[in-house]
Amino acid sequence: MQIIIAEESGFCYGVKRALELVDEYLKKGLKFDTLGPLIHNPFVVEELKSKGVNPIDKLEETDKKYVMIRTHGVPPEVYRRAQELGITLLDATCPFVSRAQEAARKLSEEGYIVVVVGKRDHPEVLGILGNVRGKAYVVCEPEEIRSLNLKGKRVGFVCQTTFRHDVFARCVTEALKVVAEIKIINTRCHTTERRQNSVLKIADETDLTIIIGGRNSSNTKRLYELASMKGRAYHIESPDELKEEWFENAEKVGIAAGASTPDWLVEKTVEKIKSFERRS
Amino acid sequence: MQIIIAEESGFCYGVKRALELVDEYLKKGLKFDTLGPLIHNPFVVEELKSKGVNPIDKLEETDKKYVMIRTHGVPPEVYRRAQELGITLLDATCPFVSRAQEAARKLSEEGYIVVVVGKRDHPEVLGILGNVRGKAYVVCEPEEIRSLNLKGKRVGFVCQTTFRHDVFARCVTEALKVVAEIKIINTRCHTTERRQNSVLKIADETDLTIIIGGRNSSNTKRLYELASMKGRAYHIESPDELKEEWFENAEKVGIAAGASTPDWLVEKTVEKIKSFERRS
Repeated sequence: MQIIIAEESGFCYGVKRALELVDEYLKKGLKFDTLGPLIHNPFVVEELKSKGVNPIDKLEETDKKYVMIRTHGVPPEVYRRAQELGITLLDATCPFVSRAQEAARKLSEEGYIVVVVGKRDHPEVLGILGNVRGKAYVVCEPEEIRSLNLKGKRVGFVCQTTFRHDVFARCVTEALKVVAEIKIINTRCHTTERRQNSVLKIADETDLTIIIGGRNSSNTKRLYELASMKGRAYHIESPDELKEEWFENAEKVGIAAGASTPDWLVEKTVEKIKSFERRS
Repeated sequence: MQIIIAEESGFCYGVKRALELVDEYLKKGLKFDTLGPLIHNPFVVEELKSKGVNPIDKLEETDKKYVMIRTHGVPPEVYRRAQELGITLLDATCPFVSRAQEAARKLSEEGYIVVVVGKRDHPEVLGILGNVRGKAYVVCEPEEIRSLNLKGKRVGFVCQTTFRHDVFARCVTEALKVVAEIKIINTRCHTTERRQNSVLKIADETDLTIIIGGRNSSNTKRLYELASMKGRAYHIESPDELKEEWFENAEKVGIAAGASTPDWLVEKTVEKIKSFERRS
């Protein structure tokens, strides 16, 4: 059995950077928590806890002087609230997300009605929305555009960094039927695109694909969706979930990992699959 | 046999306005030619010739002091050339086309690379292009976007006023994959949309559709394409082209006319179809 790992797989730039910042601050002797789980992977979150870095839901919950903002970013009011509470924020917002926040702010300052294409309750989307100074909407499918009153309006579009290109484009297409003007700042992260193409490629070349990543990770779920379109695919959070029968008669197995999945989880997954082979 | 005429059919706003301007200037006693045929309909052009208004290819060809700019508009150099020649231009450019020209100029002034979605050699497109002060491209299908070097660029989009919405949207979608920013000024004329929907509707309700309009009229050709998608359709320039056998066993006949087709041509077409019925 041949195991092929997707070319673009595992930690993305923003996640790597966030974890490097954690190490850097810990080395400096800083004690801090993270506002929400730092990244969408339970193993990484557990590892951080063991180092004294705990996820909190609200700034008020911490007993430390420092709190880290995770890759998804936060709305501006969190920065204001931190100041009121005397908490120093350590900002691990992914630079691509910061760019999306700035884009939304700029569009609203230029007088555009802002449409954020993304998941309504995703923390990144809430952070982007918080930066809009005028009217704003969140849509996650083209049909929703029709119910907004955009006829003859000037509309500014941004996109959740990891959102689907095709849905983003279809939302723009729908708006184009009625609006006077559209300005789109392309806030999709290019890694996402490459990662998704990479999964499609290995799913095409193999008999089944294993997608590794947190159950609450949007980008991992999307990788699973794409792989399923091409053939048999399984989404696991941990190698323990692998089942021997999945690999019966399989000659080629593809593996891809979400943007929050550490390399060691990929390695353990490969080992486990190989152990099935030895047994058979 | 029932004959249904499409709700939105015949002369559009820009064409009506141009012909009213002709009458107005003739009443004032002005003698003038038109730069190119005033509208894309041979009968109307012949009628104008009988009034002494001749289509010319170049400003240099006229022996008159006045020349009319037709609905499609012209690039700015024509205005300059007219001044050099001492010719006064009578401007019948469709206001929707003027808006598209201004949009292209504005986008290029704002530093965008301008992409005009439309037919490369269409006079309207050449007029729009002439207003761009920086880099510009014309594309008529999404595949062409890929061959342009737009990666990471700021791209401004405008559209030939009568072009297909779906193609325009697909060009934007294609660009969205690579560009940093897109600004779209929606220069499509709403009449075009309504006219096209109107044809789809009657083509759906009838056994065959007759599309009346000039062979060189883009918008008429598009109406024919749309009607053909729904069932049997014929494109005629004149009622003389109608064939009796088309109407055998037809219970309902739809009629739609291009934006440059005068009402009397529609009336003559209806009369001719009715004469087939009387004979049978």
